[in-house]
Amino acid sequence: MDLFSRFIEYIKDEELFGSKDRLLLAVSGGLDSVVLTHLCRRAGFPVTLAHCNFGLRGGESDGDATFVRQLAETLGLPYFEKSFPTQAYALEQKLSIQEAARELRYTWFEELRLQLEEAGTGRAYLLTAHHLDDSIETLLINFFKGTGIAGLHGIRPKNGKLVRPLLFASRAELEAWAHAQGLRWREDRSNQDPKYTRNAVRLELLPAIERVFPGARANLAANIGRFAEVEQLYRASVDLRIRKMTRVSGAELRVPVRQLLKAEAVDTLLWELARPFGFKPGQVPGLRALLQSAPGRYLASGTHQAVRHGAWLLFAPLGVPDNTVFVIDKTEERVLFGTQLLQMQVLPAAPAVLPADPQLALLDAATLDYPLVLRRWKPGDYFYPLGMRKKKKVARFLIDSKLSKTQKEQVWVLESHKRIVWVVGHRIDDRFKITAHTRKAISVRVGPLSGPPNDAPGK
Amino acid sequence: MDLFSRFIEYIKDEELFGSKDRLLLAVSGGLDSVVLTHLCRRAGFPVTLAHCNFGLRGGESDGDATFVRQLAETLGLPYFEKSFPTQAYALEQKLSIQEAARELRYTWFEELRLQLEEAGTGRAYLLTAHHLDDSIETLLINFFKGTGIAGLHGIRPKNGKLVRPLLFASRAELEAWAHAQGLRWREDRSNQDPKYTRNAVRLELLPAIERVFPGARANLAANIGRFAEVEQLYRASVDLRIRKMTRVSGAELRVPVRQLLKAEAVDTLLWELARPFGFKPGQVPGLRALLQSAPGRYLASGTHQAVRHGAWLLFAPLGVPDNTVFVIDKTEERVLFGTQLLQMQVLPAAPAVLPADPQLALLDAATLDYPLVLRRWKPGDYFYPLGMRKKKKVARFLIDSKLSKTQKEQVWVLESHKRIVWVVGHRIDDRFKITAHTRKAISVRVGPLSGPPNDAPGK
Repeated sequence: MDLFSRFIEYIKDEELFGSKDRLLLAVSGGLDSVVLTHLCRRAGFPVTLAHCNFGLRGGESDGDATFVRQLAETLGLPYFEKSFPTQAYALEQKLSIQEAARELRYTWFEELRLQLEEAGTGRAYLLTAHHLDDSIETLLINFFKGTGIAGLHGIRPKNGKLVRPLLFASRAELEAWAHAQGLRWREDRSNQDPKYTRNAVRLELLPAIERVFPGARANLAANIGRFAEVEQLYRASVDLRIRKMTRVSGAELRVPVRQLLKAEAVDTLLWELARPFGFKPGQVPGLRALLQSAPGRYLASGTHQAVRHGAWLLFAPLGVPDNTVFVIDKTEERVLFGTQLLQMQVLPAAPAVLPADPQLALLDAATLDYPLVLRRWKPGDYFYPLGMRKKKKVARFLIDSKLSKTQKEQVWVLESHKRIVWVVGHRIDDRFKITAHTRKAISVRVGPLSGPPNDAPGK
Repeated sequence: MDLFSRFIEYIKDEELFGSKDRLLLAVSGGLDSVVLTHLCRRAGFPVTLAHCNFGLRGGESDGDATFVRQLAETLGLPYFEKSFPTQAYALEQKLSIQEAARELRYTWFEELRLQLEEAGTGRAYLLTAHHLDDSIETLLINFFKGTGIAGLHGIRPKNGKLVRPLLFASRAELEAWAHAQGLRWREDRSNQDPKYTRNAVRLELLPAIERVFPGARANLAANIGRFAEVEQLYRASVDLRIRKMTRVSGAELRVPVRQLLKAEAVDTLLWELARPFGFKPGQVPGLRALLQSAPGRYLASGTHQAVRHGAWLLFAPLGVPDNTVFVIDKTEERVLFGTQLLQMQVLPAAPAVLPADPQLALLDAATLDYPLVLRRWKPGDYFYPLGMRKKKKVARFLIDSKLSKTQKEQVWVLESHKRIVWVVGHRIDDRFKITAHTRKAISVRVGPLSGPPNDAPGK
């Protein structure tokens, strides 16, 4: 079957776009995008060309722009062109030139695509000219960088409104067709520079691989589709296990440790559990250690923490939002808030000596009205500091304690029926203290979580 | 942690063998197996050394044997040695030298292992000195040969009674330890010959990969474990889907075509369905075509056939064993036997003209006693050939029909209550024919399956 028929069939098989949709073609002027332009034109698709001039190769860049402009004119296709101050943008945004160009390109393309969508009736798609060799190169780069199964499906033909209708064809096939059609295109000499990983893979590594394994290219191409399906089934398996095993409670995900330890593929399940919370593959051994560690140990990603909490491994947001309120029932023994832990214990008798430890509150059980509430202090709060008959504003108390602004922001209070019991970690309220009449006492201790187990990486 | 401690820990973590088990060490005399010998010796494991002399490198081979013999003597370990006529065996068995050596080696090792097992109380294991670099090389070979996910777990630490306790260590680590211990070993110069794929991977390809991806070796090592777990979860997903979808009926596996077509990852499921029946990856497109094809089409592996049969895709053994008997209920419309198909149809009235087609039997429905039986003819069978009043032995009838021996072996008969109704494809019995009194007729047609759809590969 000739290239054009395969092109049409691929679009149909992969359901890339429909006959009513408008197409925006990213055209550099190189072989791939020129072939894509001509194939779309022959198919009668409603295409608009767009060319980015990144101004990185001086006169050559301008030559590319002129070439694409003329191509659009010759074919009578709508055309957009934009020049970007790429180097300045990269410097400003602290990006590599490649990243900067990518960001600029896709932002502009999305603007154009939305314009097309608004102007027409159907949807608008951005088409890029990635082909099979690009996909094989991506597969190899991911394989050697160690991205796991998720990197082995190569380039996807469709990702939202971004579509790659040339993935069925090799670069050699595109070139043969271009020659047969008498097409002209621009050569980008930076494609020959092996300092770029992708060029090194194409120019050096793939030929070396094919010298040892003559069928490698075809085998890799066949495997791209297979790995995509393996990944699909793998993901279904993971999702099922995670759904069955976990419980969601507010912003927290709870995983029963014993059940997880008994599962097959524990490390992989841990990784898939932790990944959505910003953890990195290198933290899996640390997470694994948490499963065996004492309660209270934790490991953090940039945004979340994984905490060993009783029989559970909890994934919870790192910062506790200001308006969070913990409601504490009589049966509760531990409350985790941020990276701090509140531990409650009933004492059968009032202790003879009261320790002077601000982290420990000793309270008369009879004075407490459950449920208790743990929340951040707020302006207007007042309490009767231990040893005082007069009430005092918490704000005033904290100023007198010489706390910094940041330290003050971190202060919590424990409440019983709207009365403050304890300015946590600082002073209890006189109304709740232990007296000669106390028959049952409650000790409440606050402390930081114990931190990462062993020398686990991450945090 | 030093190499010895890691060795002990790896054996424990991977549950490779227990303290009561006996160990047979395959020792070539090279670095890896010498290190393994010394590690086992230091651990106090009950080891026996075994050395194969394949006689492929003349004096060097004999030198290796002498070296290992002396190693066993020095360490005071039991020792077995055997010389093999490798080249003659390869020629005789039409194997490559490498295949021949492998076959000879593992046959002899298994004999020795069983002897050890009989002599002792626990189990006996064969230990080989494969290490992490071997596993990475295997991963790469499988990746480039396109074996799919099943090839990406590298070398397994345990496979039945075969155990690889050095997979945790790289070749460089083994060599460093050997130097530190002042060990001596033999260099096998054939390990430097890049004509062997594995040597080419080690000596040329891996260094080329590391020039482009400096972290590749570590990434690949990390991925070996990850891919093994991905494969485990993938397989669980596949097994669940196949179990839910298929029905087993005798030696047949039945797959509902519509359900399969609606599943995710159809090609992969088809492959996993077909693989146990000897199909090859290249036959998947052919199997896929069967799902869309007319009933009766089939595709064969060396041992089985996949047949489109009504709403089902059937996997069934190719040859029908001689003693197979098909029991046919009144409701049955099609019977598949071997690569032939029997199709039954009720005719509302007896046809006016009886066609003279030996592939078609027209029978008086009232004479039939269900269930019918379809089986191979056997000596002693007789029937009343259409148009005859006298019974005739089927054997005689087939001789008179001038059938070859092979053709005769392929003849089936259709029975009703132990009376032969039809010598299938040849002649019906006079007692079941359509007469002037027939009110309802049954037509039974036999024919070959239609063969592979389109130009599907395989068969």
